[in-house]
Amino acid sequence: MLLLKKDLFIGGVLLKEFEFIEKIKPSYYRNSSVIKGIGDDAAVVSPPNGYELVIASDTMVEDIHFSFEYMQLSDIGFRVLAANLSDLAAMGARPLYYAVNIAVPSTYSDEQLTDLYVGMNELAQKYKLDLIGGDTVSANELVITISVFGKVLPNRKRLRSYAQTNDIVFVTGNLGEAAYGYDLLQSNFLLENYFTNRHKRPIPRIDFVELTDSVIRMSLNDLSDGLASELNEIAEASQATIVIHWDDLPIHSKMTNIEIEQLKKYVLSSGEDFELVGTCSPTEWDLLKEATNNQLPVTPIGKVTAETSTPEVYLTINETKTILCKSGYSHG
Amino acid sequence: MLLLKKDLFIGGVLLKEFEFIEKIKPSYYRNSSVIKGIGDDAAVVSPPNGYELVIASDTMVEDIHFSFEYMQLSDIGFRVLAANLSDLAAMGARPLYYAVNIAVPSTYSDEQLTDLYVGMNELAQKYKLDLIGGDTVSANELVITISVFGKVLPNRKRLRSYAQTNDIVFVTGNLGEAAYGYDLLQSNFLLENYFTNRHKRPIPRIDFVELTDSVIRMSLNDLSDGLASELNEIAEASQATIVIHWDDLPIHSKMTNIEIEQLKKYVLSSGEDFELVGTCSPTEWDLLKEATNNQLPVTPIGKVTAETSTPEVYLTINETKTILCKSGYSHG
Repeated sequence: MLLLKKDLFIGGVLLKEFEFIEKIKPSYYRNSSVIKGIGDDAAVVSPPNGYELVIASDTMVEDIHFSFEYMQLSDIGFRVLAANLSDLAAMGARPLYYAVNIAVPSTYSDEQLTDLYVGMNELAQKYKLDLIGGDTVSANELVITISVFGKVLPNRKRLRSYAQTNDIVFVTGNLGEAAYGYDLLQSNFLLENYFTNRHKRPIPRIDFVELTDSVIRMSLNDLSDGLASELNEIAEASQATIVIHWDDLPIHSKMTNIEIEQLKKYVLSSGEDFELVGTCSPTEWDLLKEATNNQLPVTPIGKVTAETSTPEVYLTINETKTILCKSGYSHG
Repeated sequence: MLLLKKDLFIGGVLLKEFEFIEKIKPSYYRNSSVIKGIGDDAAVVSPPNGYELVIASDTMVEDIHFSFEYMQLSDIGFRVLAANLSDLAAMGARPLYYAVNIAVPSTYSDEQLTDLYVGMNELAQKYKLDLIGGDTVSANELVITISVFGKVLPNRKRLRSYAQTNDIVFVTGNLGEAAYGYDLLQSNFLLENYFTNRHKRPIPRIDFVELTDSVIRMSLNDLSDGLASELNEIAEASQATIVIHWDDLPIHSKMTNIEIEQLKKYVLSSGEDFELVGTCSPTEWDLLKEATNNQLPVTPIGKVTAETSTPEVYLTINETKTILCKSGYSHG
């Protein structure tokens, strides 16, 4: 496992350069469970005893998942790693290591590549993550794959199949802020405010994992694909019916004057805030509220009303109950 | 962790399609240590007790690492996974799981994408690997990142820093065959023979790992970057001097009539055969020979002559000793 392949063809086969590896190779590892980090054919780790290992990976592509029009390379590094850490949070896992695979145009300088890692390193420092490997190759557009590794106690993992009848459905933070920030950026690349930052530098909800260790059973998803999609996934995996209420959905006060159909798109269909949606029993809900009190906003938005072989998600709005599809479209 | 994101923008945020996931999702997992495979935010595994976990990843790009001129999509899937498995073999690890992250042009059909997985699945079946996740996104060119996970007993891992004075230096198989096959393909895309197949469908040396469990100490690299480069890595990591002999290098009889300078490029500088190069003590060499006897060709090609703070690799050819650089260039 190497970290830079330059296009030096000899006999039709790539030779590789090693200078860049030395530049980004950590001088020490934060986790003692890293037996061998960067610098051999592969990394060797010894995940902590008694824990299960959680593995997530995400790929992001220039002009599809991010844009240089209004993002620095360090923002992009930050955002891709944040998206991955959000997947760990959604499993109830604490971060341990990450690996970075980059396909990059040969016009990039070492300094630009390093900026990508600077953004990642901000999160890595905060959550004590170790960079253990990856690969860097040439391509015509920037494609970044990050893999993250976390640990979870077997009885504290948060699967989307764990919802049960009578569970309270909750979300962290507010809904639709990143998508709203994205749209603001489209009309003004230079704009910088709370919402644009929610798109450029989303904070994964690792704090939620740390605060809710005492809660035994929770189903959980991150809002990478939007509330409607994630709730439908929980409903399907748990074979359950979920009912949520429009009036209970947490929306930033500065977004409430947005035209209703557009607001519904932001709140129901837009993801990538990397907030969490989940369910737990009414008893554990009290525990969860207490554990997160004053530190992290968690809002109840509905209930799991039944376990069923025909799972559905319903949205009540103005006392009308409609079926909420994955796409966020709702119909009677 | 999902396996297909289509470019359906709502509120500026991607929605994802799930049909393809269902298509490639395994119906069962070969390893009981897979707690949760595809189908949640991340995979959950519980690596076997007493083992360390080995993690490798490689990224390959259309027209740089592979070509559609003479490779099927199934060949490409096979080759990328083989390269990763070779990294596991080079650490002395046995394969467990893999994850696949693909950036793919939107012109690809589901059938074409499936063909990629068909190629990978041939190796996955052979080595009892489980597909545990990944991501599929749109891009302008095909970029594939595979991550593989393997297990190794702590006292059987094969680091490149493990070489010691008096060690025998050995290689598996023959040298330069894949690069020769690659060049043959450049002059005739339709050619199919032993050498072209060595380029298109290299076999990772997992068999070597399985046969040499009894050998306690080995330094080991796979020949992904060519013999000269890999030997220099072992020399540097072990702070050792290595001397190898041209006349001892295993070369296929059908390659011996190649002009000498070209042959040297194939043999010394060309990688991606995914054979292994390593060192072990003279005593353990006897054990290794016996363990691999009749099942896998292993050839002694030189010795570790000293441990030193100024590591070098030397090549003797026609009784002249030259310094062998990483690039394969040798000088007096």
